[in-house]
Amino acid sequence: MAQGNRRGTGVASDSKERMVKTTAKLLQRQGYHATGLNQIMAESGSPKGSMYFHFPGGKEQLAAEAIALAGRRIVSVLRGHERTSAREALDAYLVTLTGFLERSDFEDGCPIATVALEVAPVSEMLGQACTEAFDCCEAEVAAWLERDGYPPAEAARRATLVYAAVEGALLLAKGRRSTEPLERVRAAISDLLGSPPKRPRRPAR
Amino acid sequence: MAQGNRRGTGVASDSKERMVKTTAKLLQRQGYHATGLNQIMAESGSPKGSMYFHFPGGKEQLAAEAIALAGRRIVSVLRGHERTSAREALDAYLVTLTGFLERSDFEDGCPIATVALEVAPVSEMLGQACTEAFDCCEAEVAAWLERDGYPPAEAARRATLVYAAVEGALLLAKGRRSTEPLERVRAAISDLLGSPPKRPRRPAR
Repeated sequence: MAQGNRRGTGVASDSKERMVKTTAKLLQRQGYHATGLNQIMAESGSPKGSMYFHFPGGKEQLAAEAIALAGRRIVSVLRGHERTSAREALDAYLVTLTGFLERSDFEDGCPIATVALEVAPVSEMLGQACTEAFDCCEAEVAAWLERDGYPPAEAARRATLVYAAVEGALLLAKGRRSTEPLERVRAAISDLLGSPPKRPRRPAR
Repeated sequence: MAQGNRRGTGVASDSKERMVKTTAKLLQRQGYHATGLNQIMAESGSPKGSMYFHFPGGKEQLAAEAIALAGRRIVSVLRGHERTSAREALDAYLVTLTGFLERSDFEDGCPIATVALEVAPVSEMLGQACTEAFDCCEAEVAAWLERDGYPPAEAARRATLVYAAVEGALLLAKGRRSTEPLERVRAAISDLLGSPPKRPRRPAR
């Protein structure tokens, strides 16, 4: 294959990647409706006209890919917080989220949440993207719980509770411009995680 | 006072109230950025020009009043769910929220949440409105807990945890178009509420 061709593909995919990353950042800060295509093109330094080449489905498709990217990033952050117990992992993760919020002056909350509230109920494509991203994040928390001894079904149910509390705390923290909701959820980790059910003893042979 | 004058005032305040109610409904369904003044005026049947008469601060002021109205309505719903224990109250409240979501095809979640994520961090006026609304809602949950025997400071801390879990569950439910997150939080009410601390016994006289 000619080098020119490969380089061309690289430039094209760089441009596409920059658009998705820029969109993810804008969705996190201001949501779907406030994020216009002109702003995405300008902030990503993308040539006009490249938009519908890469994303024939327009802004909706671009936002769906940005939500998928955001989901992969959260999964990566969650994996980076694996500790010897779910309690330590969740504690460290909440400290990290608190830092993200503080350093961004309360703009960088969950990159999926605003889109989930604004448009997921009315956009099939974005509803699907939000569902898949939330599922992946919850699966990581469920994996922490399984390592603590929870059976898979119970770990999945409790992961939803934990993830709801984390999403809600981020929302209340942004709304109030205060990290206190995150600190209060952090102080209640024992209640959120409970205790893994006792495994039945094996009968003596 | 002439009847015409009184009637005139009534019409003016009816028009103002309709605008606030319409805005609250639109903010709940689609958020701040998607809600334009033209849509508010059209859907509330308000004459053009009455907007800046009632709301010299424009859309931001109108949205702040809509958030305050939404907060008062949630407080009223929470009070309507008072039961003999916090556990029963929260259980009944989650059933009601699940019904709201289902009947509206997942559009009617928390009327404050979307604005809290979209604009509270960057609008002083809306940040203040969201903070006050969240504070009032949490205070109702804290009151349930105090009646169960929690000391006020502990009731306030736990009310934040409960409210975060409820907000997060609504968010995950909208994002997924599924009531399962609410059902899972409902199944974990005992963990969210914990047990009120034992009161110290009074020393025998």
